[in-house]
Amino acid sequence: MGRTPPHPDPSQFDLQRVLEALVDPVRRSIVTQLDASGEDVACGGFDLPVSKSTATHHFTVLREAGLIRQYYVGTSRMNALRRAELDDVFPGLLDALVRAGRAVPDEART
Amino acid sequence: MGRTPPHPDPSQFDLQRVLEALVDPVRRSIVTQLDASGEDVACGGFDLPVSKSTATHHFTVLREAGLIRQYYVGTSRMNALRRAELDDVFPGLLDALVRAGRAVPDEART
Repeated sequence: MGRTPPHPDPSQFDLQRVLEALVDPVRRSIVTQLDASGEDVACGGFDLPVSKSTATHHFTVLREAGLIRQYYVGTSRMNALRRAELDDVFPGLLDALVRAGRAVPDEART
Repeated sequence: MGRTPPHPDPSQFDLQRVLEALVDPVRRSIVTQLDASGEDVACGGFDLPVSKSTATHHFTVLREAGLIRQYYVGTSRMNALRRAELDDVFPGLLDALVRAGRAVPDEART
């Protein structure tokens, strides 16, 4: 509590910034993993192919774009998907991207 | 006819490539204008804030990502949104992005 980093208000959500955040595959993976977990996840709880400091940068970009909310529980920095607020400003975008991330090309289908 | 540039098959559609195409606001504007027109549009028929040669580059990136289909009618290069194929591979993504491009922040709403 207390040490909450700044977050944009939904009125400040910007599609350009959201897409710049989500064009990075590591950041998209963070969002997809958060969505799949269905609950808030500590920074250390993600499976990411980057160093801890690089991951921290990616979390910051996602937070500043409004995609995640970060807060502390003790010394753990927790991450929450801002799903309701994102769905309100950009209806269907998060779902479509998460689904697209799981999409399998035609030829790989039966 | 004849001079049709190469296009990826839907089985080759790649989310990373699609997002890299759509993260650029000029390219997003091309897609949004195509969607709004409801018909195929010649390269010269778009309202874009860039030079003709820069626009040509953007059309190529969109074509190579699978977002548009290009073909010639006489000397005019026409552009068609590959909506059905995109909707099949990435359900809802195009609609969500087009809608998001029109999204108005909360504070600007009544």
